[in-house]
Amino acid sequence: MTLTQALAARFGRAGGALAVGGVPVERLAARVGATPFFAYDRGLLADRLAAVRHALPAGVHLSYAVKANPMPALLHHLSALVDGFDVASGLELRAALDTPVRPEKVSFAGPGKTVAEIRQAVASGVTVELESELELTRVRAAAAEIGVAARVAVRVNPDFAVRGSGMRLGGGPQQFGVDSERVPDLLRLMAGEDLEFQGFHIFAGSQNLRAEEICEAQRRTVDLVVALAEHAPSPVRYVNVGGGFGIPYTARDTALDLAPIGENLAKLTDVVAAALPGARIAVELGRYLVGEAGVYVTRVLDRKESRGKVFLVVDGGLHHQLAASGNFGQTIRRNYPLAVANRIDETAAGKVSVVGCLCTPLDLLGDDVDLPAADVGDLIVLFQAGAYGLTASPTAFLSHPAPVEVLV
Amino acid sequence: MTLTQALAARFGRAGGALAVGGVPVERLAARVGATPFFAYDRGLLADRLAAVRHALPAGVHLSYAVKANPMPALLHHLSALVDGFDVASGLELRAALDTPVRPEKVSFAGPGKTVAEIRQAVASGVTVELESELELTRVRAAAAEIGVAARVAVRVNPDFAVRGSGMRLGGGPQQFGVDSERVPDLLRLMAGEDLEFQGFHIFAGSQNLRAEEICEAQRRTVDLVVALAEHAPSPVRYVNVGGGFGIPYTARDTALDLAPIGENLAKLTDVVAAALPGARIAVELGRYLVGEAGVYVTRVLDRKESRGKVFLVVDGGLHHQLAASGNFGQTIRRNYPLAVANRIDETAAGKVSVVGCLCTPLDLLGDDVDLPAADVGDLIVLFQAGAYGLTASPTAFLSHPAPVEVLV
Repeated sequence: MTLTQALAARFGRAGGALAVGGVPVERLAARVGATPFFAYDRGLLADRLAAVRHALPAGVHLSYAVKANPMPALLHHLSALVDGFDVASGLELRAALDTPVRPEKVSFAGPGKTVAEIRQAVASGVTVELESELELTRVRAAAAEIGVAARVAVRVNPDFAVRGSGMRLGGGPQQFGVDSERVPDLLRLMAGEDLEFQGFHIFAGSQNLRAEEICEAQRRTVDLVVALAEHAPSPVRYVNVGGGFGIPYTARDTALDLAPIGENLAKLTDVVAAALPGARIAVELGRYLVGEAGVYVTRVLDRKESRGKVFLVVDGGLHHQLAASGNFGQTIRRNYPLAVANRIDETAAGKVSVVGCLCTPLDLLGDDVDLPAADVGDLIVLFQAGAYGLTASPTAFLSHPAPVEVLV
Repeated sequence: MTLTQALAARFGRAGGALAVGGVPVERLAARVGATPFFAYDRGLLADRLAAVRHALPAGVHLSYAVKANPMPALLHHLSALVDGFDVASGLELRAALDTPVRPEKVSFAGPGKTVAEIRQAVASGVTVELESELELTRVRAAAAEIGVAARVAVRVNPDFAVRGSGMRLGGGPQQFGVDSERVPDLLRLMAGEDLEFQGFHIFAGSQNLRAEEICEAQRRTVDLVVALAEHAPSPVRYVNVGGGFGIPYTARDTALDLAPIGENLAKLTDVVAAALPGARIAVELGRYLVGEAGVYVTRVLDRKESRGKVFLVVDGGLHHQLAASGNFGQTIRRNYPLAVANRIDETAAGKVSVVGCLCTPLDLLGDDVDLPAADVGDLIVLFQAGAYGLTASPTAFLSHPAPVEVLV
């Protein structure tokens, strides 16, 4: 089974069409009132959460990284399924607190927090993950002004890197966190302060499909936290080992195996229980929780044959799904999985290229893809669109209307 | 002189700081009320227009491609300096018509126009550049419904490609335009129709810094138009040879020399006058007119030393200037020109990396750049930000507030 077939099977079908949340996509388009749009499947979100809970040991705190998809309805849905949220900006903070989640279950990381954002975070009572010595000064100032004790953790730039990550966020010189060798000095500055010290956040890389690399990073993270804890101003409660769980985007990718990660975390839970009584491991996942539960739905505006090639021109494009066009930091463009949603049971009839409506050759969503015979009016869906889709795309490019997002 | 120095000199300085529109950038930040922001210099826009007019023969119609920067105030400013606008979406069309420009001076190109956009265009009286046979059908339907004669031109996918372009938009199989060998049939369909046929649009590539390649494309374009004109339903009035004039983004780039392009167009104007009496050559420029007149201004939030490297963390990032981070379709990342705006006269004090505020290693605006000693509160400007900046960036990424744009 191809990746596309596996994803289509997961969403299910109704009357020859792909279904999202049980609704055939053509009917969903009518309900939304326009194409293109993003649709996120509540059931698939819940299934994914259940799978993660099943694989991970019971004591692990599961946090959702809002940056992956900050749609308010989706946050509300997830707030009942996860233990907390991680936010990366003042707006994400507000969106998180609009859900039933309690502030003490929210952490705020990011190397460029503004003074205003730090003030927001302190006033909210969320945990500020300090990325520098200067941020401690700013947190202190905000706490003094507002008259509360700030909750803080330290984001550590580890002295190791993780192989296999799509993006490396730790090891060597970094803008993220405080170099591990400088953390003891930072912790000493906190002694005797009116701060609620929580613990540490160490995150070494994202979009990793190799379980063993993730396990290795988690082990080294726990080792490092145990060593740093000796310098902590108060007992460590929180060991945020990050996430980095990847999802398959192209035919070359193999889905991540959660089982070894769960086993590894079970062992690490014991290590933490012994070395840091009262501390809890937190895993922070964004893309892995939501990425596969979303599709981007476009409609074919034109079918063109040009010098032996067939182009389906759709009403969406890279302005909504930049990564799928291969233009968001990728060095080699590979097709993301896509299908003709209203012909999901039909067999392939030949190769076509699916292009967006923008006046640029970058706007290529599928290059020479085997698809059923499709024409004007058909619906093309791109899978794996639940994370870093709409918000990671240049929506104002060529001034097209913003697409709708629905949770189904 | 480096590219950065040349650009800084063009903007000018006041009291040790870079100036935009004569206003020192620190004061401009106070006027704007926040960082980050984009600032576009009216004077530099006018200078660039004057230089282009000087280089190009008098009879050439100069059109501005709104997609490069659709800021309303900038469009108003340019409407007095150019002969028309080219738009690529219904929203760009509305923005163009909000200026004093007359509809007959506006053309609408784009491979994925919706039925609604074609209706808008026909009702507005702008020229629809047909990208397919189906678009002709849709234009006819809209014209019949609205009760007007539609103005149309044919966008042609030429049978040649241009070397040296940053992006190729013509030659071989393409989603853009109608293959040149199929154009005669399309033109025959127009005979006897109540259509105001204008002419042709042939655009082979963008962001080209080699004048000779542009001249060659223009010559071949005119040859092709002259050949196609034999099949036209009425005399050709409009020969849109596109643009594709590039600007230098990195130290490796050399600015385009307009003089040979002007000389070439003078010859081609004679060719067109002889072969197609009453027709006019149109040149359509976006990036070249506005790209160098804009800066993106950010403020340093933190200065971090990590394992021997210095990072300046600014309050902007790739969510506003994606191309400058090297992540918008580029295969190799190279620094765009940048400077410490409030220390523009100071000498370099060592290498630093300028990173944005986003929680991703992709958010790198300057890698190991020689800059004057800069610290928290200083202003970092990125040059060459007037085109495909704000609108070509994922502004909602990590939910940071949208930046302001000002025309100074």
